[in-house]
Amino acid sequence: MAQQARAIRTRRAILNSAATVFAERGYERTTIGEILVRAGVTKGALYFHFASKEDLALGVLDAQMLDVPLTPPAIKIQELADQAFLLTHRLQRDPVVRASVALALDSGATSIDRVAPFQAWIDHLSDILTVAKARGELLVHVNVTDSATLFSGAFSGVQAMSQVMCDRQDLAHRVSVLLQHYMPSVCTPALLTSLELTAERAVTLGAEYDAILLRREQDQLADTPRQ
Amino acid sequence: MAQQARAIRTRRAILNSAATVFAERGYERTTIGEILVRAGVTKGALYFHFASKEDLALGVLDAQMLDVPLTPPAIKIQELADQAFLLTHRLQRDPVVRASVALALDSGATSIDRVAPFQAWIDHLSDILTVAKARGELLVHVNVTDSATLFSGAFSGVQAMSQVMCDRQDLAHRVSVLLQHYMPSVCTPALLTSLELTAERAVTLGAEYDAILLRREQDQLADTPRQ
Repeated sequence: MAQQARAIRTRRAILNSAATVFAERGYERTTIGEILVRAGVTKGALYFHFASKEDLALGVLDAQMLDVPLTPPAIKIQELADQAFLLTHRLQRDPVVRASVALALDSGATSIDRVAPFQAWIDHLSDILTVAKARGELLVHVNVTDSATLFSGAFSGVQAMSQVMCDRQDLAHRVSVLLQHYMPSVCTPALLTSLELTAERAVTLGAEYDAILLRREQDQLADTPRQ
Repeated sequence: MAQQARAIRTRRAILNSAATVFAERGYERTTIGEILVRAGVTKGALYFHFASKEDLALGVLDAQMLDVPLTPPAIKIQELADQAFLLTHRLQRDPVVRASVALALDSGATSIDRVAPFQAWIDHLSDILTVAKARGELLVHVNVTDSATLFSGAFSGVQAMSQVMCDRQDLAHRVSVLLQHYMPSVCTPALLTSLELTAERAVTLGAEYDAILLRREQDQLADTPRQ
């Protein structure tokens, strides 16, 4: 178990360094050598976790998806809003998540599969919308695939614009505006007043997420024998 | 006049070449030398039109904005939809427009002002929304700046995703879905049925735009003396 906790930390350190170098130089100009120097690990350690530069990029791209389970909200469609607010929170604090969305939008990164992260988001949001529709939360004409694809694309543009304009300082507000325009076109009207779509929701969820992360790290530390 | 027509064509040829090289190599890795080779013009000709690589990038970024006046629609808010459909049409056929949006989203292009093209779109859409609101076409709670900023950001993400997923083949449909989600949240309900928000609108407007461009080129040719 101690060894596993160490391996998780090493993998995370390598991903952090890869993310930083990708973000600074773009995918094509990044070399494995630079990532090694930045991470301060041996070539052997890196290749134990990642087979190639492409594999490192895929690891960074994976960071977009949430690996921490949060309390499910009573209204299913709130989950779509919550995913957007949580990604906002993580974009503002985690360099790997930032590098992940930058890689997905990096049109110079022609040798990696940039379809996968978009498709993963579309599939994830489609699942949420399908359940919401089955529960009668959505307007009957809603096309689940179209609405999920739109939200994924729109979110990615809103965050890119916020990054260019003000280094994502207004992102929670921009995401709130996106949700306030999106929800009336997919939700039944009676449900709208029960949804939490303001920037405060990003703060509440962010705190819950941070607490879970901290607990997880403490659990990992407890597994490591004292030196 | 003949000289002016030639100058316009030379400037356009240089911009086309710059756009192609920017799109292939990204802003930072592009050199003026490569653009000269591609355009087949002298250094003197290039520097007559553009002061620097940055100036070339600004010229490419400018290509996003429409320089052809179209017939204004009877309903003001239709103009916002029409701008989106026209940009769709131009993104599918003009390499300079494609390079322009790629540059605006190129996070490696740190030495150029990428705020300007986003701000130009926000301002342009804000003007349309302000007039639409004054004419009573919009819901009373609509915040013009927020709605204009959202649409600019969402469009840029929708087109980027469509480019990644299928080389923009489904872009007219994606933009139509965006508009069909956006309009019910900003427009008065009675107006919605009068709006044209399907992909066919992109075809009609594209044809009108192409016809105006062709006429303009013929006028320029008529100004050039026969050899």
